[in-house]
Amino acid sequence: MKIPVGISNRHIHLNNDDYKLLFGNIPLTKRNDLTQPGMYACNETVTIKGEKRSIENVRVLGPIRNYTQVEVSKTDAYTLGVNPPVRNSGDLDGAYSITIIGPYGTIKRDACIIATRHIHVDKSIREEHHLEGIEKVSVIIGGEKGGTINNVYLKDSEEAYFELHLDTDDANGFLLKQNDEVEVLLDK
Amino acid sequence: MKIPVGISNRHIHLNNDDYKLLFGNIPLTKRNDLTQPGMYACNETVTIKGEKRSIENVRVLGPIRNYTQVEVSKTDAYTLGVNPPVRNSGDLDGAYSITIIGPYGTIKRDACIIATRHIHVDKSIREEHHLEGIEKVSVIIGGEKGGTINNVYLKDSEEAYFELHLDTDDANGFLLKQNDEVEVLLDK
Repeated sequence: MKIPVGISNRHIHLNNDDYKLLFGNIPLTKRNDLTQPGMYACNETVTIKGEKRSIENVRVLGPIRNYTQVEVSKTDAYTLGVNPPVRNSGDLDGAYSITIIGPYGTIKRDACIIATRHIHVDKSIREEHHLEGIEKVSVIIGGEKGGTINNVYLKDSEEAYFELHLDTDDANGFLLKQNDEVEVLLDK
Repeated sequence: MKIPVGISNRHIHLNNDDYKLLFGNIPLTKRNDLTQPGMYACNETVTIKGEKRSIENVRVLGPIRNYTQVEVSKTDAYTLGVNPPVRNSGDLDGAYSITIIGPYGTIKRDACIIATRHIHVDKSIREEHHLEGIEKVSVIIGGEKGGTINNVYLKDSEEAYFELHLDTDDANGFLLKQNDEVEVLLDK
């Protein structure tokens, strides 16, 4: 079955305490909605700093979560000088230490991960596409630099938009653009 | 069959005339040998400039060739603001225009490509591994972000070191490091 691709540039999710430490009492402001229902990009950005270098203008995604998490690509990780593990969003086990600099304050958190390749699903999507009980799949990508990616996790939420999320390394390596179509292949 | 991976960061090959326009009469100097016999990285670097931004410290690879070619990743292409085609090295058909800045002068050339994924072979490697007459293969990559890449071209030279060359997008997307092993799969 074919689904569209959404490409995730480096970004940060913040819990309420960390948001206040970075931005003070100024409320988070929406810049634009994302494809996943209820999710949005904010006007607010931070600088992230690793052991080698910093990257500026890292966008805060809303709404506020109950954990602080910085998602980067491996290319970003080399730039920053950090060695984050590959993790599903929300799983910060072994997440790499990173400094986060906002307009109001600076914090250091074990919060940096490379996100697993994942497909957003919900109960009705799983039912409609016979994906019940499936943890991960492979995805076939066409084009001049095409191929197949494995270990693509199905990520459940209350209400989802059915799409594959890739980081910029995967997207650029395969020459994929936002909303390109790829083919889901169920793992044996 | 298993072969090692070599990762190509952005780099430039220069013909003699362009070398002199960029560097004057100072001769090219070797920094270190590369794995392919006779190929080396030079101490010399250039700045490359697209329609949006520049990237500094782009290494010159030696020896001098009979064409000038700038090889970048898709990530670099977005940074620079250029739209290079995917091409085998030496095929500059449709190569994107790019400005090249050296310590002595500046040139603008239709020279920018994204290199195809390729495996270096020579006659004896083709014979030993039963690769005669084969133009391209697929390669299986293991690991947490593993998968399979298609359209991997066999690139012949007089004397080759048998390895897969990938750009930094492919290598980082698949979490590959220099000399990691991958599995060659012959296309049907």
